[in-house]
Amino acid sequence: MTIHFEAAELTARRAAACRAARARGLDGLLLFRQESLYYLTGFDTFGYVYFQCLVLTADGRMALLTRAPDLRQARRTSVIDDIRLWTDADGATPEAALRDLLAEFGLAGGRLGIEWHAYGLTAAVGQRLGVALDGVVTLEDASDLVSRLRVVKSPAEVEHIRQAAALADNALDAAMAEARPGAFEGDILAAMHGAIYRGGGDDPANEFVIGSGPDALLCRYRSGRRRLDPEDQLTLEWAGVYRHYHAAMMRTIPVGRAREGHRLLFDVTAEAMAACLEALRPGNTCGDVFDAHARVVDAAGRRDGRLNACGYAMGATFAPNWMDWPMLYAGNPMVLEAGMVFFLHMILFDDAAGLAMCPGQSALVTETGSVPLSRHPVDLLVAG
Amino acid sequence: MTIHFEAAELTARRAAACRAARARGLDGLLLFRQESLYYLTGFDTFGYVYFQCLVLTADGRMALLTRAPDLRQARRTSVIDDIRLWTDADGATPEAALRDLLAEFGLAGGRLGIEWHAYGLTAAVGQRLGVALDGVVTLEDASDLVSRLRVVKSPAEVEHIRQAAALADNALDAAMAEARPGAFEGDILAAMHGAIYRGGGDDPANEFVIGSGPDALLCRYRSGRRRLDPEDQLTLEWAGVYRHYHAAMMRTIPVGRAREGHRLLFDVTAEAMAACLEALRPGNTCGDVFDAHARVVDAAGRRDGRLNACGYAMGATFAPNWMDWPMLYAGNPMVLEAGMVFFLHMILFDDAAGLAMCPGQSALVTETGSVPLSRHPVDLLVAG
Repeated sequence: MTIHFEAAELTARRAAACRAARARGLDGLLLFRQESLYYLTGFDTFGYVYFQCLVLTADGRMALLTRAPDLRQARRTSVIDDIRLWTDADGATPEAALRDLLAEFGLAGGRLGIEWHAYGLTAAVGQRLGVALDGVVTLEDASDLVSRLRVVKSPAEVEHIRQAAALADNALDAAMAEARPGAFEGDILAAMHGAIYRGGGDDPANEFVIGSGPDALLCRYRSGRRRLDPEDQLTLEWAGVYRHYHAAMMRTIPVGRAREGHRLLFDVTAEAMAACLEALRPGNTCGDVFDAHARVVDAAGRRDGRLNACGYAMGATFAPNWMDWPMLYAGNPMVLEAGMVFFLHMILFDDAAGLAMCPGQSALVTETGSVPLSRHPVDLLVAG
Repeated sequence: MTIHFEAAELTARRAAACRAARARGLDGLLLFRQESLYYLTGFDTFGYVYFQCLVLTADGRMALLTRAPDLRQARRTSVIDDIRLWTDADGATPEAALRDLLAEFGLAGGRLGIEWHAYGLTAAVGQRLGVALDGVVTLEDASDLVSRLRVVKSPAEVEHIRQAAALADNALDAAMAEARPGAFEGDILAAMHGAIYRGGGDDPANEFVIGSGPDALLCRYRSGRRRLDPEDQLTLEWAGVYRHYHAAMMRTIPVGRAREGHRLLFDVTAEAMAACLEALRPGNTCGDVFDAHARVVDAAGRRDGRLNACGYAMGATFAPNWMDWPMLYAGNPMVLEAGMVFFLHMILFDDAAGLAMCPGQSALVTETGSVPLSRHPVDLLVAG
C-alpha cells in the first residue's frame, strides 16, 4: 500500500464530507473529481480519463466503480475495499452499472450530490448518466462540496506543499544553471523537471510554461523549442509537485542583460506582489487580493498589460489543470482562512515593446497574514 | 507564429471537417476538444481547462471564444483571426457569449454539431451551455466527427510520429542507463523525460507509468518513488511526444536477473505481439487485433492475467489522456486503414507469483500490413 496520509486523517476527511452532505440533505455523493477521490481515500490514478465514480453514502459506506486497469491501482493506493469493474465493449454502459450499484446501496429514491464539474465526467458522459439515473435518484450538483473542504490544508498537507515548494526552488536553480545566451529551451525544461523527479516529485497537472523572445508574452505551454538569443527574455511558469501537491512559481528572466523596460515592469510587479502578500490574510476576500494587484498595476499606467486574475489556490490537483479553486479575480467573495495556499502571479506585459515580466510565488495564509513558501526572493534574475 | 503544419494542410483539414458537417446536415460545429482545435487550426494551449470553443461554420468561417490568457497564445500558434474573450467574474457566463457569437454568425435557428465529449466541457458546463442555447440552435452530438478525420495520419503527421517514436526509443536507452539494483525510480523518470525534452519533445498527455516490486503490476502512475531491490522488476510505460504526437512504448524489465516466471510470461507476450502485428492490417477491425491478442494469451492459460483491451490509437493528444480513439477491445467494429497508428500493449500479470511482463510498442498501418515504429525490438531486457 502506498498512501501518503494516515488512515485516521482520511477517515476524518470522509466524515467531514458526509457531514457536509447531510447538511445539504443529501443521502450520498457521486464523486468524479480525481482531486476528491485522492483527498478522501488516497486513490491515486489517471484512470479518471474514463468513467470512474466513487459512491460515498451519507453514513460513510463507499464503493468505487472503475475499469480493470485500475483494480490493482485502487487496492495499492487507496483505502477503498469495495471495487467494482465495468468492461470496455461496444455499447458498454458504466452508467447502468452505477445505477445498479446505487440500488444495492439502498440509495434508489434518494437525493444524491454529484460532482458534475469533473474533467473525467464530460458533458457527453454526463448526459448518458442523467438518463440512466432519471427517476432512480434525484441529483443535485455538489461539485464544490469536497473542494470547499480541500481548500484549507491540514498540517500533513502543508508539509507536502512545503516539499513541493522546495522542489520548485530546486527547479529554478536548475533552470538558472542552464539559461544563458544560446541555451536550448528543451535543455532548460529537462533540467527543471529532472530536479523534481530526482527529488521524488511528480508530473505537474499541466505543462510548465516556457517561452522566449516574443513568446515570453505567452502564459500557456506550446510545442516547439528554440535557442535563446544573445539578448533575450525567458518566461517560465512551473510547479514543484510532491504527492500531487503543487507549489507554483513564475519568473521572466532577461537573458544577456536586463533592458530598462524589464526593470520598469519589474518594479511594478514587485510592488504588486508586496501588496498582494499584504492583502492575503484571514478575513480578506480573494477579490481583495486581486484589487491589491490591480491597484498597483493600474496606478502605474499598465492596465492593458495585466490579466483579469492574479492567482489561484494550490493543492493536490490532477491533469489537465493545476489551477485549484478558488481563483483571485475581481469581486470574488471567497473569504481567506489560515491554512489556504495560493499561487500569486504578477503577469505583466508591454505589448508595444514586446516585453514581459511575470514574477510569481506560492504563499501560505497564516493566522495573522501570509508567508511565501519559497526560499527564492522575488527579485530580478538575469541569465548571464 | 509557431505552427507545425503548412497552412494548406490546415485548410484542407477544415474543408474536410466542413464537408463532414454538411454530410450530417449540420450548419456548423462547436468544437471543444483540444485535439480538434490543434488539428484544424494549429492552436496549441492548455487553456481548454476553462471554457473555450471554436465555432466553425459549414461554409468555413471560424471564431474562437476563450479567456484573456489565451489571446496571445491563439495569435502565435493558430491560423484563427477572429478571437473573442470572456472575462472571469463571479457569475461569468461564457455560454451567453457563445450564444451571442452564434447569432452574429447567422447560426441562430440552425443545426449545430457539438463535441459534448471533451475533457474541458465538463457535465456541469455542458448543462449550462445546453440551457443557454436551448431554443436558439439545435445541438447534435458530433464528438466523433473530427476524431474520425484525425485517425488516418497525413504524411506530415506520420513524420511527427516518427520523431516521437525516436524520442521514445531514446527514453528507453536513458532508462536502461539508469536502471540497476539500488536505482531510484525518480532518477529513471528524470532520465526518460530528459531525453524527450532535450530532443525538442513535449510533455506526455498523461503521466508515464513507473512501478517496481509489487507495483510493477500497476498500469497507472502514482506518486511516491522507491529504490529498486537487488532482484526486482520494473514496469515502464511511456511515450515519445513530438508536436504533441505520441508514440508509446512499454516494458517490464527484470532487475538483477530474469526469473523463470518472467521468461514464461515474456514468451506469451512476444507471441501475442507478433499475432497483433499480423492482425493489424487494412480491412481487419480493431476487434480482430484484440482477438489475436486474447487467443494467444488465453491459449497459454493466462486469461486471468490480461486486460480487456490491448492498445489504442496514437495521435496528437492533450492532457489528461494520450489514449486516442479508437481502442482495441473485443468486438470493436472499427475497420483499419493505412495511415492509422496504434500502440499495442501486451500487458500480462501473474498475480499469484506477483510478476508482470508488459511489452508494448507503436506501429503504423501500411497499405499491406503494419510496421513497428521503434528501432528497439520487443525482447526481454534485463537491468544488470
